[in-house]
Amino acid sequence: MKPNFSLRLRIFNLNCWGIPYLSKHRGDRVKRLGDFLNMESFDLALLEEVWSEQDFQYLRQKLLPTYPASHYFRSGVIGSGLCVFSKHPIQEITQHVYTLNGYPYMIHHGDWFCGKAVGLLVLHLSGLVLNVYVTHLHAEYNRQKDIYLAHRVAQAWELAQFIHHTSKKADVVLLCGDLNLHPKDLGCRLLKEWTGLHDAYLETRDFKGSEEGCTMVPENCYVNQRELQPFPFGIRIDYVLYKAVSGFYISCKTLRTTTGRDPHSGTPLSDHEALMATLCVRHSPPQHTPSPTHGGPAERSRLISVLKEAWAELDLGMAQARWWATFAGYVIGLGLLLLALLCALAAGGGVREVAIMLWAPSVGLLLGAGAVYLFHMQEAKGLSRARAELQHMLGRAREAHDLDPESQAALFLGQQEGDRSEEQ
Amino acid sequence: MKPNFSLRLRIFNLNCWGIPYLSKHRGDRVKRLGDFLNMESFDLALLEEVWSEQDFQYLRQKLLPTYPASHYFRSGVIGSGLCVFSKHPIQEITQHVYTLNGYPYMIHHGDWFCGKAVGLLVLHLSGLVLNVYVTHLHAEYNRQKDIYLAHRVAQAWELAQFIHHTSKKADVVLLCGDLNLHPKDLGCRLLKEWTGLHDAYLETRDFKGSEEGCTMVPENCYVNQRELQPFPFGIRIDYVLYKAVSGFYISCKTLRTTTGRDPHSGTPLSDHEALMATLCVRHSPPQHTPSPTHGGPAERSRLISVLKEAWAELDLGMAQARWWATFAGYVIGLGLLLLALLCALAAGGGVREVAIMLWAPSVGLLLGAGAVYLFHMQEAKGLSRARAELQHMLGRAREAHDLDPESQAALFLGQQEGDRSEEQ
Repeated sequence: MKPNFSLRLRIFNLNCWGIPYLSKHRGDRVKRLGDFLNMESFDLALLEEVWSEQDFQYLRQKLLPTYPASHYFRSGVIGSGLCVFSKHPIQEITQHVYTLNGYPYMIHHGDWFCGKAVGLLVLHLSGLVLNVYVTHLHAEYNRQKDIYLAHRVAQAWELAQFIHHTSKKADVVLLCGDLNLHPKDLGCRLLKEWTGLHDAYLETRDFKGSEEGCTMVPENCYVNQRELQPFPFGIRIDYVLYKAVSGFYISCKTLRTTTGRDPHSGTPLSDHEALMATLCVRHSPPQHTPSPTHGGPAERSRLISVLKEAWAELDLGMAQARWWATFAGYVIGLGLLLLALLCALAAGGGVREVAIMLWAPSVGLLLGAGAVYLFHMQEAKGLSRARAELQHMLGRAREAHDLDPESQAALFLGQQEGDRSEEQ
Repeated sequence: MKPNFSLRLRIFNLNCWGIPYLSKHRGDRVKRLGDFLNMESFDLALLEEVWSEQDFQYLRQKLLPTYPASHYFRSGVIGSGLCVFSKHPIQEITQHVYTLNGYPYMIHHGDWFCGKAVGLLVLHLSGLVLNVYVTHLHAEYNRQKDIYLAHRVAQAWELAQFIHHTSKKADVVLLCGDLNLHPKDLGCRLLKEWTGLHDAYLETRDFKGSEEGCTMVPENCYVNQRELQPFPFGIRIDYVLYKAVSGFYISCKTLRTTTGRDPHSGTPLSDHEALMATLCVRHSPPQHTPSPTHGGPAERSRLISVLKEAWAELDLGMAQARWWATFAGYVIGLGLLLLALLCALAAGGGVREVAIMLWAPSVGLLLGAGAVYLFHMQEAKGLSRARAELQHMLGRAREAHDLDPESQAALFLGQQEGDRSEEQ
């Protein structure tokens, strides 16, 4: 690789809102998306919510001349909805399906059936190893009373761990997708602190698009206006995040978003806004890039604080999961008692017909409670796993902190601040 | 690191057969295992089938002075059963739960409830990065008619991919565990060809233990003798596998197995035999280590052949999964018809009581068929995902093969051989 090496990457990301039968104007939007991608000829187009494999196949055929490489990430019952189109050959592909992803009985929310995941592509561009991740985390249906918060935090942690462990030999890491997290949400901070990824919107000097970089805006006719009421400009939940290892430097030259309209005709391509980033990678003198547990004292303090916060959130989630498992356990006991009583009544005569009629619903109750019990036991195990990993990394980060004299002052100041806020 | 650097690693691996209430003499065996591990003071002890977290906590307390670091990998409803005890600090921990792992309605086999997984530990030893993997794949209950074959092949592929993608910066990779695969089984060959891992039993010059290195032997009093009847010496399904990257050289100095007895008293530690390996890592002049798709023509031919075989196996599994999903779909249709009929009968009088009595079982049938449908749809998606990854890597391996003139001859000879065997 030449010392004056420089690489320009044009990236497109969109949550396509492609639910068969439910999403408005789906066929037309997919067609126009294909036309737009062909015309713009990005290096990579990363899409979420392409729930129908037919839509992917249609796009694959249409985009084949411009984007010869593509992949559809299959998982869950419906699919992850993730797919990617690339102008450059894809060297390697893998994916990780999140352990926790909502509840099967929340059928109207549907996330559980999708098998939300993170997909990884490894590309080799002019001798540079580029790891591209595309993901979609669990949706947020009620910000005030978010029953999926622990799951989304666990997903953010699994995502961060997956990136951390699979990108160790990558020169450049790129993560695009719908995180369903606002920029200051715990999951987003955890992801950024643990992986060291930078936010294209915050880094670029040349941004054009929606106010505050929002990716769900009230101007979009497909957006539920009532849900966006507390946010006059909309919300920013779709991201382009990146980093480069020592020896390389990456910057975001330009970032554009659509603004609730199709770039060419009147109606938008989706209920989300598309992100279009031009990234520039070039050589830089090798320098010490801090690893998560070996950063400076300020970074470590921030990391410790966010790890603690995530630990506490998962702990709450675990208590909740265990409560449900215990509750289901009691229902199972009750169902068994009821069944025994019904058997006795049926044998004894008297209300035999009623007893026989109630027998099947009791068995149903028992099986249902059994399924709920198993599900929440599994949920508790999943949360406990993430909590244990967080606990371990917290220990490592604290050790590194304690060994560093510079950190002592920062920690002391942080503790004082913490004590003050606890007192308040 | 000094050029004459050398590191000796003593490794212990055992499937502990620790099923609460079911495994014989569990408490006593766990106690004796703890004593043995303390006495031998290995660098790493990797255990499978520690199903009870209490057993892990007991061992953790007991082994704390000798093995200060430990981790229990939680997953599924019951847990993965995997845990590890280390003399050296563990830098990083993560795990991957296999997408496919049997069927929830095969309750008597129980694998589905465990959430079988692979655990990863990253250790830094004298400046060397060591990635240690511990795993346990789906059990084989009937070798002649193995309904879990496609799942086990998919697990072997996920395991190989997880190792491949997470070990790119590791100097040494170590995989221990119960693979439930015989050495020449498809899954085992796939794993070894894709990761380049070497089998300690085949590599070492100093082996002492059971005949042919078997890890389930008829001499073991806990083993089901009937199941081992076709294998007079037993079967080899537990492994110590390793590799080192360019710049390092790893060899297995000695490998020992138990032989159906406790090393000190009369009864064995488990129904499996323990593996005890002494590995030696030293510097070696850097050389070109072939990556899976960039090996020599012979390696590539072998890889292509095993990828094709795995692809075909997953394809068969997918057809099976889709058949079950379609069958469940028909049952759902039938259940709906039955329900409509019952409603009509109940409304019309006559056999009203019978209709009401049959209503609940019909709803049960419908829900049950719905669950079966969803499960097998998910299974098909999981298999299809692994098949797509295999297909992609097959394409890449073929491309590399076609570009290499040396390979042409090998491919031609291979094809001739293939044609001959097809003709026969």
